[in-house]
Amino acid sequence: MDTFNKLIELFRRFPGIGPRQAKRFVYFLLSGDKPFLEGLVSMISALKREITQCQECFHFFGSSLGIVKSAHEQVTALCHICTDKNRGDEELMVVAKDIDLEAMEKSNTYRGRYFVLGGLISPMERRNPDKPRLRELQIRVGKGVKSGMLKEIILALSANPDGEHTSDELKRMLSEFPVKVSILGRGLSTGSELEYADKETLKSALKNRSTS
Amino acid sequence: MDTFNKLIELFRRFPGIGPRQAKRFVYFLLSGDKPFLEGLVSMISALKREITQCQECFHFFGSSLGIVKSAHEQVTALCHICTDKNRGDEELMVVAKDIDLEAMEKSNTYRGRYFVLGGLISPMERRNPDKPRLRELQIRVGKGVKSGMLKEIILALSANPDGEHTSDELKRMLSEFPVKVSILGRGLSTGSELEYADKETLKSALKNRSTS
Amino acid sequence: MDTFNKLIELFRRFPGIGPRQAKRFVYFLLSGDKPFLEGLVSMISALKREITQCQECFHFFGSSLGIVKSAHEQVTALCHICTDKNRGDEELMVVAKDIDLEAMEKSNTYRGRYFVLGGLISPMERRNPDKPRLRELQIRVGKGVKSGMLKEIILALSANPDGEHTSDELKRMLSEFPVKVSILGRGLSTGSELEYADKETLKSALKNRSTS
Amino acid sequence: MDTFNKLIELFRRFPGIGPRQAKRFVYFLLSGDKPFLEGLVSMISALKREITQCQECFHFFGSSLGIVKSAHEQVTALCHICTDKNRGDEELMVVAKDIDLEAMEKSNTYRGRYFVLGGLISPMERRNPDKPRLRELQIRVGKGVKSGMLKEIILALSANPDGEHTSDELKRMLSEFPVKVSILGRGLSTGSELEYADKETLKSALKNRSTS
Repeated sequence: MDTFNKLIELFRRFPGIGPRQAKRFVYFLLSGDKPFLEGLVSMISALKREITQCQECFHFFGSSLGIVKSAHEQVTALCHICTDKNRGDEELMVVAKDIDLEAMEKSNTYRGRYFVLGGLISPMERRNPDKPRLRELQIRVGKGVKSGMLKEIILALSANPDGEHTSDELKRMLSEFPVKVSILGRGLSTGSELEYADKETLKSALKNRSTS
Repeated sequence: MDTFNKLIELFRRFPGIGPRQAKRFVYFLLSGDKPFLEGLVSMISALKREITQCQECFHFFGSSLGIVKSAHEQVTALCHICTDKNRGDEELMVVAKDIDLEAMEKSNTYRGRYFVLGGLISPMERRNPDKPRLRELQIRVGKGVKSGMLKEIILALSANPDGEHTSDELKRMLSEFPVKVSILGRGLSTGSELEYADKETLKSALKNRSTS
Repeated sequence: MDTFNKLIELFRRFPGIGPRQAKRFVYFLLSGDKPFLEGLVSMISALKREITQCQECFHFFGSSLGIVKSAHEQVTALCHICTDKNRGDEELMVVAKDIDLEAMEKSNTYRGRYFVLGGLISPMERRNPDKPRLRELQIRVGKGVKSGMLKEIILALSANPDGEHTSDELKRMLSEFPVKVSILGRGLSTGSELEYADKETLKSALKNRSTS
Repeated sequence: MDTFNKLIELFRRFPGIGPRQAKRFVYFLLSGDKPFLEGLVSMISALKREITQCQECFHFFGSSLGIVKSAHEQVTALCHICTDKNRGDEELMVVAKDIDLEAMEKSNTYRGRYFVLGGLISPMERRNPDKPRLRELQIRVGKGVKSGMLKEIILALSANPDGEHTSDELKRMLSEFPVKVSILGRGLSTGSELEYADKETLKSALKNRSTS
């Protein structure tokens, strides 16, 4: 297979990209000018070097920030959230992906720590492209418990079958630790119409009704 | 305008029907056999006679059920929910449409009374095809308060701009009554993905998190 | 089953209407005022009386137009197209539905006669709600041939599997008549993008290219 | 701006990619293993080197094929279509994009030469990301005319406003040459339903009807 078709194959692995759009990408690159292509290549090459994965929460972050270096110790990469002294250690929120962590940070409503699972546990053991970091989560929780600080683990996973299955599995797995495990509240999400809401959503919406 | 086009105009007023489908309906009727057409005409004619609107909650119901008749009193039409002695009078749930009441009943989670508003208060005084029964709601609440039974009004409106605007207006309107006014809880509805959830939804989901 | 649910069942038979929208229709009628409901009932009742099916082409038309009545003869209903002396008898265009005839008339490009088939021949003998008028077509063509006027039958059916199958079957069926049978030309339809066009379309588009 | 955000900006320029998917691409690369990233970088770097643009028709092609090299002459890159002796020089088909040329080749119906315009002439002089190669087309046609071989230019552009505007402009531009200029035929494309076909399509479909 030649470069043209090999590159189509690589783009097909990108999330949400089918064969037709992958080919369009290659034609787009062929029409691209030299600075654009060189920029793209150099950025992709630099990406892993300049973006670091936090060794505590597994969030990706710009490595210019937060790396604790010392002459005698090993370099430890910690992100700005894990090193923020104004955030509490009582709560640990487990999210599936970096992008979920970002959504939660933008909502400006949570001031505890995070753990990026990196994937979900599929009910069927189907295609599981991204394996969740279960062992790493246990270590992280163990550390929090040992320090005496961690009081609650908040499982902030999507309200769909994979998310719910993963929440169930994590609850079982984390039951060995003397710490509360909660899941995000269900209810009407923005835009929900009562007429189309399912039983589960209505039940929670009624239970969580508020007078504010 | 002839019958053909007049009928198209009438079908265009049906919810969700544009000119093309309205015309298709008329051609469909033209191809329909006599029993079908006669059945349709007789059902439409009978509908209002056989379905009654509850004089308490304004829910539509089959009039063979629930009508309280007496020789000396006036006939009063009350639906099976308003006359159900096993349901409590402490809570009154305000919904926009009959179909919302049905969704809530199907969820099998609420055991109080209802009030069908029949429409929403539009923020812009835009096209407002269905006027909400505000005066009737005040009378209903007044009665509940007077009886000493009513403790809480639950505004169960959709989580969209019109629903929220109506909830705000109703809260103001009902503040004269010595009764709690609540709204349904927000949170992740079934199928919600964290990544796409808005700030409001995440905030409520976090607040309403549960350990069950 | 009561009137409410029976009416839902009747509306579900309307083209393109599922159970949810059928129910919404019934609630819509329940909220409708008396003049609207009476108008609807009277229009539906009058429809078949005031709209006639042409006995020549099976097109529906307002019966105030075109009915040839005489004291001694039977009433024969002929539409304005079949009775238009400015249109030619050389060409007979076969369409599936009235709405297709209307689309063709609006294009203002055809001046011959029509025959409304009323349905397509399904390749699988699957659900075939509307049976095509095959026998009637043969009679109509036979008459045209006998008069010596009819020269060409144009099969104007949709470019999809059912349409193509019906065209094939009609060609076979009509081969007994000494008359040309043609089908509409294939090519790029308005809005078509070359990139997504299939082989058949491109082949015809190339063959039918024009210098105008 | 850091590498993370710079790379998002670069991916946003890819066809059909919005900010959310661009960010997802970057997270995807961050999770990617080393061989994948190195492969991607090396393929993108090699692409322009290994894929050549034909100097005759401006089609992209694998440069291992078709390059005419000689010790004394300059290297001239000609694609396998331009150098195919079994194809005729009488017809030159003008397409907008490489991907259109591919669609036409796959239809296996055309045996002449091509010219890839590389873009369309926008009616409004709106955002025109890809400038069409008008000057190059004139040179190519001039050469064909001079050789005495070229008889017809087929404008194979999409049947949408930009395509039609470009066809009109090209016809005017090419009118100076003693050669026929045609456009692809309009008609029902595969899947077209008569009911939804516009006037232009029906007119052409009727004109191009066939008895085959």
